[in-house]
Amino acid sequence: MSRRNRPDRKARTAGTKQRPFARVRNRYPPMEILSADQVEAIHRASLKILRDMGLRVDCRTSLRLLKGAGADVDFDTRQVRFAPELVKELIAGAPSKFEVHARNPEKSIVIGGDELVFATTCGPPFVSDIDFGRRDGTLEDMRNFVKLVGALNVFHVEGGSGLEPMDLPPETRHLDMMMAQITLTDKAWAPNWLNSTSRARDCIEMAKIALQTDDDGLRARPGIIGGVNTNSPRLLDESQAEGLVEFARAGQPIYVAPFTLAGAMSPATVAGAVVLQNAEALAGIILGQAACRGAPVFYGSFAITVDMKTGSPSFGTPEYAQAVIMSGQMARLYGLPIRSSVTTSSSCVDAQATYESSLSIEACVQGHVNLIKHAGWLEGGLTCSFEKLILDAEMLQMHAAFLEEVDVTDDAFGLDAIAEVGVGGHFFGTQHTLDRYEDAFYAPLLSDWRNYENWRDDGSKTATQRANEIWKQLLREYEKPPIDPGVEEELEAYIAKRKEEIRSSASSN
Amino acid sequence: MSRRNRPDRKARTAGTKQRPFARVRNRYPPMEILSADQVEAIHRASLKILRDMGLRVDCRTSLRLLKGAGADVDFDTRQVRFAPELVKELIAGAPSKFEVHARNPEKSIVIGGDELVFATTCGPPFVSDIDFGRRDGTLEDMRNFVKLVGALNVFHVEGGSGLEPMDLPPETRHLDMMMAQITLTDKAWAPNWLNSTSRARDCIEMAKIALQTDDDGLRARPGIIGGVNTNSPRLLDESQAEGLVEFARAGQPIYVAPFTLAGAMSPATVAGAVVLQNAEALAGIILGQAACRGAPVFYGSFAITVDMKTGSPSFGTPEYAQAVIMSGQMARLYGLPIRSSVTTSSSCVDAQATYESSLSIEACVQGHVNLIKHAGWLEGGLTCSFEKLILDAEMLQMHAAFLEEVDVTDDAFGLDAIAEVGVGGHFFGTQHTLDRYEDAFYAPLLSDWRNYENWRDDGSKTATQRANEIWKQLLREYEKPPIDPGVEEELEAYIAKRKEEIRSSASSN
Repeated sequence: MSRRNRPDRKARTAGTKQRPFARVRNRYPPMEILSADQVEAIHRASLKILRDMGLRVDCRTSLRLLKGAGADVDFDTRQVRFAPELVKELIAGAPSKFEVHARNPEKSIVIGGDELVFATTCGPPFVSDIDFGRRDGTLEDMRNFVKLVGALNVFHVEGGSGLEPMDLPPETRHLDMMMAQITLTDKAWAPNWLNSTSRARDCIEMAKIALQTDDDGLRARPGIIGGVNTNSPRLLDESQAEGLVEFARAGQPIYVAPFTLAGAMSPATVAGAVVLQNAEALAGIILGQAACRGAPVFYGSFAITVDMKTGSPSFGTPEYAQAVIMSGQMARLYGLPIRSSVTTSSSCVDAQATYESSLSIEACVQGHVNLIKHAGWLEGGLTCSFEKLILDAEMLQMHAAFLEEVDVTDDAFGLDAIAEVGVGGHFFGTQHTLDRYEDAFYAPLLSDWRNYENWRDDGSKTATQRANEIWKQLLREYEKPPIDPGVEEELEAYIAKRKEEIRSSASSN
Repeated sequence: MSRRNRPDRKARTAGTKQRPFARVRNRYPPMEILSADQVEAIHRASLKILRDMGLRVDCRTSLRLLKGAGADVDFDTRQVRFAPELVKELIAGAPSKFEVHARNPEKSIVIGGDELVFATTCGPPFVSDIDFGRRDGTLEDMRNFVKLVGALNVFHVEGGSGLEPMDLPPETRHLDMMMAQITLTDKAWAPNWLNSTSRARDCIEMAKIALQTDDDGLRARPGIIGGVNTNSPRLLDESQAEGLVEFARAGQPIYVAPFTLAGAMSPATVAGAVVLQNAEALAGIILGQAACRGAPVFYGSFAITVDMKTGSPSFGTPEYAQAVIMSGQMARLYGLPIRSSVTTSSSCVDAQATYESSLSIEACVQGHVNLIKHAGWLEGGLTCSFEKLILDAEMLQMHAAFLEEVDVTDDAFGLDAIAEVGVGGHFFGTQHTLDRYEDAFYAPLLSDWRNYENWRDDGSKTATQRANEIWKQLLREYEKPPIDPGVEEELEAYIAKRKEEIRSSASSN
């Protein structure tokens, strides 16, 4: 371990109190912004886009698949149009709920219905912590981030290695990232690098080794979660289409999340962004079904807005929250699970990062999003922050606790205790309280509830400073989850072989 | 203006972009945690407490009023018990909705129904900003805080002077606080110092002068909002009872907010805390009705939890959020408006202060709380922070924007613009976008959406640092709202007379 990431020996020892790994159920009805008529109007507008304008799909394989499924395909212009009946028929074939099997069966999860799955971020080229600031991500940072995702019980899924290890060659980087995901956690994982058939295939092959199964076994018991973006407006590029097709064919869950930046890449209205998103998401899901009927392809939402004055994208805004709730309604119209995100524009782990993320989480929870991605994100996804990961973990587990069933029984009411305590007394010593002492209320990961004097005398630490201590302590306490040495060797051998193949293919080009 | 509060001349000029003062409507159905049966079970358990155990009311006037209304009163023990029929009859007389008339009629507000009213804090003995830290509140701090509440459009009501000016004599402090509230803003206000008949009366007299009306006029058009706490468990002390009776008699809105600290002052369960809160709130509302049938007395909720390991109260927790939602359901059972709060335990304006406050706001919004108090609060209410006020303003106005009606029309969908832009293009130049350029999306008060490089080159300021610049700029730009000089003189004369009376009464004791 380098000096940079060496845990601070003075870190407080109470920092890693955690709730157990547990499924989270959304037991209350979803918030709805749209009336049934408005849901229908958005649906119909999307069908009109798909029928009259269509999408361009820059992938020959995908064009052939779509043609075969009955879409109107122009192979010269790569334009694809979809009749409403075809949309209806193919979307109906996608499952509304499915299980994802982790290497540790106790950490398998379900996506769909009233399930809420929390996952971490993927994609940022930068990493940051408050010791060394923002910098290029490295292999060591990436491995540390993955370890933390494994160690933090609140996360159900390793969401994609957190950051890009920029010190590794881009053409083989995905192999090292997947190796970290598989071996440093025992949770299901979401590979990040799906942007080609061969990379998606690498991920699938490594999943087969990790889960010691074959193609049919993996299809029967999916183990990884993929995701692709459309390039709004109305474009599905080659790499994304290839990854989508490969995942669908392998029967692995994959979401289609259009990137409808309202005002720039979609109309400057929430409804317009959702209409375009809906059309593009349906097109992607249709492609997945065209590749393999019944494949678990699901709905993604990432409808953010642009600051009209500066052109900057803005995350975690009121419009983003509205779009998430509306998107949840659209996904439920189609009987599909939905994925959305914790988002923020902030460049540091401050109040803005917190309230933008918190509003995003509120929208995801109230709108019944099934997969909440991107814990650890800063700066609109450009940076992966160690302190933000701890902060998001706290906010997500607070929402998990909020969603737990409240005990509303005579026993919980405690009328006998109220009678026993009498006027102006206190409940500390009653049997009713003593029976509940250990786990009466939420125990925080990050919050400091001590009074001002105690907080001040312990160094007046902000939550961000405490988050810094917590991730270092988690790394210090980290234990690699058990893995069969034979499996690990097999993975290493696969990686070595593939690196060799990729290098020789590159040098022969 | 002292050096301490002199605005920073280098403060950015874009800091005070604000949404206009506007009513906020909660157009979506409230979140519900309790089934109808569970609402009924809590109601029945509360009735049992009121019938079998009752409350102690340490106020002779109140005991006589309750006796007269039909309660079972023991004047020796000061115990009061309530028959279920009496509860039902008296609660039914309290209004479900009422208007509060501000000095500026454009800033009058409605409490009840689907209305959301945002108000600031009251009570903290300490004030803080990041320049000088936490310290005793002063008259100057208090006046600056009230100016900011007046200047920030998102706040509908001045909530109680923010902080206690500890440099003023406690026996006449309330007069100076009310003077600041009346003259430095033109919004309705919530006097803080109601803890005696004479102080409540001072507030009412000053409201009459401010609104240039008499007792009947003020009763017909209420102008101030009061609040009292019960001392859980099951105690209403003399000062709170006196203030409540005086306000109810004057026809001024007043809420009854039990302080059911679960695990200490109520059972160590959310349901137990809500049951006891419900019984105590009903008792207070009954006292208000006994003082004056039909008086606008309403439901308050402040059911927080205690950290069982340390005894510290904890604010903005998952249990607090559950209790707020459940309390909203109870208030609606009785057809009463409900008041709750933005809360946090944090000792500084950091991520914890933000996520605890944000979860509180989420619960208040989703649970249809009508009056949301305590913007500006830190440290469980011990400190009033200038930066926290700005932060809360941003979070509240984000929620106001989130609740605005979404335009879901063909025009908003922009299918023509989507067709015009084509595959992979952008929407910046379309007429559809140009038509919406000015106010397409939420404009923040505090958020910085610039990219990392621009943010860094401008000093890498956190949201808390920017909040510091914003409140200084608001003070620099502050303009006292117009007031008839005759009214101001009349108020000054009233204060001078009352100070003289209070001092001579004190010296004669």
